[in-house]
Amino acid sequence: MAQRRPARVGDPVGAIETPALVVDLGPFERNLDRMAQATRGIRLRPHAKSHKCAEIARMQIARGAVGICCQKTDEAEAFVAAGIHDVLVTNEVVAPAKLARLAALARSATIGVLVDSPTLVPLLGAVAARESAVLDVYAEVDVGAHRCGVAPGPPALALAEAIAREPSLRFRGLHAYQGAAQHLRAPAERRAAIAAAARDAQATRELIEGAGIDCDIVTGAGTGTWQLERDLGVCNELQPGSYVFMDADYLRNVADASELRFEPSLFVVAGVMSTPTHDRAIVDAGLKAFSFDSGLPQVHGRSGVDYVKASDEHGVLRIPDSGTPLALDERVWLVPGHCDPTVNLYDFIVAVRDGTVAAVWPVEARGALG
Amino acid sequence: MAQRRPARVGDPVGAIETPALVVDLGPFERNLDRMAQATRGIRLRPHAKSHKCAEIARMQIARGAVGICCQKTDEAEAFVAAGIHDVLVTNEVVAPAKLARLAALARSATIGVLVDSPTLVPLLGAVAARESAVLDVYAEVDVGAHRCGVAPGPPALALAEAIAREPSLRFRGLHAYQGAAQHLRAPAERRAAIAAAARDAQATRELIEGAGIDCDIVTGAGTGTWQLERDLGVCNELQPGSYVFMDADYLRNVADASELRFEPSLFVVAGVMSTPTHDRAIVDAGLKAFSFDSGLPQVHGRSGVDYVKASDEHGVLRIPDSGTPLALDERVWLVPGHCDPTVNLYDFIVAVRDGTVAAVWPVEARGALG
Repeated sequence: MAQRRPARVGDPVGAIETPALVVDLGPFERNLDRMAQATRGIRLRPHAKSHKCAEIARMQIARGAVGICCQKTDEAEAFVAAGIHDVLVTNEVVAPAKLARLAALARSATIGVLVDSPTLVPLLGAVAARESAVLDVYAEVDVGAHRCGVAPGPPALALAEAIAREPSLRFRGLHAYQGAAQHLRAPAERRAAIAAAARDAQATRELIEGAGIDCDIVTGAGTGTWQLERDLGVCNELQPGSYVFMDADYLRNVADASELRFEPSLFVVAGVMSTPTHDRAIVDAGLKAFSFDSGLPQVHGRSGVDYVKASDEHGVLRIPDSGTPLALDERVWLVPGHCDPTVNLYDFIVAVRDGTVAAVWPVEARGALG
Repeated sequence: MAQRRPARVGDPVGAIETPALVVDLGPFERNLDRMAQATRGIRLRPHAKSHKCAEIARMQIARGAVGICCQKTDEAEAFVAAGIHDVLVTNEVVAPAKLARLAALARSATIGVLVDSPTLVPLLGAVAARESAVLDVYAEVDVGAHRCGVAPGPPALALAEAIAREPSLRFRGLHAYQGAAQHLRAPAERRAAIAAAARDAQATRELIEGAGIDCDIVTGAGTGTWQLERDLGVCNELQPGSYVFMDADYLRNVADASELRFEPSLFVVAGVMSTPTHDRAIVDAGLKAFSFDSGLPQVHGRSGVDYVKASDEHGVLRIPDSGTPLALDERVWLVPGHCDPTVNLYDFIVAVRDGTVAAVWPVEARGALG
């Protein structure tokens, strides 16, 4: 059930078997460096749900990240097994079997998890005690995304008090992620949404600390908004993930001149398998090679050629009248519409530099759904 | 990188770890039986790209299927390794390394592949000869889908002649799949598209046989149209795949009273992880647990509750004012919008009967992209 390894170190890029997930190390390392530099003096805990790859997590930590975020118990297990020792699961975990697995991890690593229901807190405490572990727990506050989370203010205080009562839980602070703001197209809209979220988070933190409970960390932010959170100063830990790769959807966002730009570094390299007409070529990468939730992939480096339609295993390229025809077995580089669920389709990331395969990284947390 | 096995045989369905891909054996076996019965007297070669699972292929063959279809070399290898001995790759394969792998398979199994470019035929013949194998080759004809395929008539004849000249290739016939007709909503539209496709296929077959080349097989059809192809009598081999599971998209199709109905048998069982408000519950299955190319999943067995929004690892359910609230860790059964790319996200299918786990099947060709 594991995929074939699509390349070997030293192969020329033209020898990569298609379709393959490829990272171009030049822009990729520049993205890592830019974020590390721009977040000096604030905790950076990049979201590993974007890359699911321990080698990338190690590169982030080597540049100063305090640890990583995950979304799933299975992801946390995969990263701890690969040697990452500080993992925050930025999600609610409620199944007792999964809580037990998380608590077991916390015996050898720093493991955090979110809660948004006071009724669950005693179970969490009991499971951690049974595993002889201490779990870091964060109250998730709904600061405008209207997904999970308790309301800011008194409901969050009640939750913090419940957590603080459990001897096997350590209340660490607030999870205040405004997910709905990440993909707003206009900078002014993102700025307004994040300012409102920060006000709610700040007031909630003051309420909790006023009740005598330490609330050290306010964690949140994503690739679409991290500069805003950094500059407002309420969040003291930032969780961007997609910046390492970027994707067609994030690249479409209108950027303020003041915003730091990241470069596309992630591609699906597809092969042309049919050239039936002068205006159409078919590549071997379709609905099982990309996630299409945020639109079609974009053709890279082939001006005028568009990826216009996908079926399960086919992608249809439209070639303009003036365009050079594509050849059978030619490689086409495509920027995924949405990086996170696309990475989840691959067991390997092929890392290339200057036209040569420099490494083949396993995607340890591919498919880690549970 | 393999997923956790989400259940054990004998577990009650409530113990399945979420999210999991689950087949309900009652409707599933009825679907298999209905198709087997309705295609007596015609070759049924179900498409395994839908299920990617050798156990399901064995069940189809045990009910009379002549073999299976795949779309990828990697899929063909996975199925042959699992003991399936007749596989048609309904796709163009052009990379020499993949052709060599296909030809190697053909030493121990019946392996077919499509071609739509005469220039590729000598390479195909040379690779098969080098592997001391004989490949079955079909000319793909564009009968209206405008994806791959040569035009009907003389271009298809020229292709058949090129194939027939190669001693290590066996020309078997035409691949005439009208993929674009499968998802047309109205039966009359599907009927018109398939009638036109059948006319093109029939005329092409007569042209080829008139030139003295045997053209035994015309293969095609899918879950949206197979009854039409069966009744028209031009296709003598049918390739439906999705009928085993059905999905929300196929279930939305308007059916003639005369059309055979299949039942939804495939579900993603998700767990409720947050119940932040009376009208909203959050499940642990989002963009990495379903393919969203054909719309949102449908909630099964919970009248009035809708899956309204997905992010990477979250699904948002809307609960009507009159509805029963969902509980934390409660299971929600969801019908995927599109079965094929959803199955590709899972390493296991949990087969259940009467509320108990009857089997856990590996998805051998999960991720078989190459």
